[in-house]
Amino acid sequence: MEKLQIIKIGGNCIDDPQELEKFLSAFSKIDGNKILVHGGGMIATDLAKSLGISSEMIEGRRVTDAETLKLITMVYGGLINKNIVAKLQSLNCNAIGLTGADANLMPAKIRSVIPIDYGFVGDVESDSINVEFIKFFLNSGLSPVFAPLTHDENGNMLNTNADTIAATLAMALTPIYKVSLIYCFEKNGVLRDAQVSDSVIHKLSVSEYRDLKVQGVITHGMIPKLDNAFQALKEGVKQVRVCNSNALTEFKEINLQGTELIL
Amino acid sequence: MEKLQIIKIGGNCIDDPQELEKFLSAFSKIDGNKILVHGGGMIATDLAKSLGISSEMIEGRRVTDAETLKLITMVYGGLINKNIVAKLQSLNCNAIGLTGADANLMPAKIRSVIPIDYGFVGDVESDSINVEFIKFFLNSGLSPVFAPLTHDENGNMLNTNADTIAATLAMALTPIYKVSLIYCFEKNGVLRDAQVSDSVIHKLSVSEYRDLKVQGVITHGMIPKLDNAFQALKEGVKQVRVCNSNALTEFKEINLQGTELIL
Repeated sequence: MEKLQIIKIGGNCIDDPQELEKFLSAFSKIDGNKILVHGGGMIATDLAKSLGISSEMIEGRRVTDAETLKLITMVYGGLINKNIVAKLQSLNCNAIGLTGADANLMPAKIRSVIPIDYGFVGDVESDSINVEFIKFFLNSGLSPVFAPLTHDENGNMLNTNADTIAATLAMALTPIYKVSLIYCFEKNGVLRDAQVSDSVIHKLSVSEYRDLKVQGVITHGMIPKLDNAFQALKEGVKQVRVCNSNALTEFKEINLQGTELIL
Repeated sequence: MEKLQIIKIGGNCIDDPQELEKFLSAFSKIDGNKILVHGGGMIATDLAKSLGISSEMIEGRRVTDAETLKLITMVYGGLINKNIVAKLQSLNCNAIGLTGADANLMPAKIRSVIPIDYGFVGDVESDSINVEFIKFFLNSGLSPVFAPLTHDENGNMLNTNADTIAATLAMALTPIYKVSLIYCFEKNGVLRDAQVSDSVIHKLSVSEYRDLKVQGVITHGMIPKLDNAFQALKEGVKQVRVCNSNALTEFKEINLQGTELIL
């Protein structure tokens, strides 16, 4: 079974052109099959402000109304995705920018309006991913670059969380590849103390994760990220790691960097 | 040799959601290999106004400065392209949205700043198009949907005229397909009298074209479109036609509609 590395980069890395360039240079040097999944960053938020588009927030999460959907289709699917692709091409990495609508790779279900109507938000299941086309791109030497967008098969694009897309792709591709899933972000890994950047937990087990949640050590945005990550591990993804986007620069094969999740 | 239809739709059709829907429904029903190339429409212009981005015009042509490039990468590569793809998917047409950067399909040269610096504008040659990947997509049952964007292989996206992209793709694919190139727009074809919508010239030869330019019958935007179209015909494209985007709705195989170009 061939190896496949699925790497997700978050918004903070995208917002910093120098960080992004360093990351993409490292990504381009990875040997073999690789997929990049990118998040959104502040560009869409800033553009929304400039255009006077204010979307509703419910329980700390943004509602994707029709105007917001247009905005993120532009920014995620166009500006960020195509600039990453152009940059990777300049680094001799034959990237192809994709959303879940392209080649019907990721058909999704619009999230139920009960209990909360989040608007044009899509939930994607690993068994609905069209793995044949992804395999076909990888076999042809292409590196897919996914924007955090899916579609509902009724003509609408949908906003889908990039962490979830990365985990779902990893689970869907596990039957045909030896998949490593790597979440890159601005921290050095899962931290024992959020204020201390080198308090990285090198190995995090499901039971320790459960305890750290109860103790309030792991909170907020880390919880859905790690929930996704542990689910991928349970579903057979070989390696799941959370690390700094710089870790890729220092080691072509990410080793001993950041937090490795274990069952 | 298999048939391939390359269809270009212009901005006016894109700006009218009902026209676009009708067109895409007809496009989705075309049997066999097909490629769609779309232009820009007014969305980018309107968005530029909302954002207070005013790009310079030189001799009636817009300069693509860095801000304008960002804007069209968002609008052409993201909003328009992905919405067309999502709509085609809902019509059971397995579309894949692409720019010239994706899979390095259309590397281009930034236009010389002499005599006029048009900014981030790319010129693409038919022999630099990566036909192997396009063939590979078509053979897999995918219908490529091209945004009018290329890249310079140095990490920059470039603005490239959609008529030119359609003609260049047609020429590049002529050695492996029996290519028909169809320019769809808001008029019924090349008109003998711009004010009379049914004054369509059914067959237009190179020499008649030359005469009509001298007489001032064919002017403005039609000239670069027809220059592209005639060049494609000279380079071996089997059929080149200019017609109303509705023509596709009325006849699955476009016949006797609009203007057929002949050598």
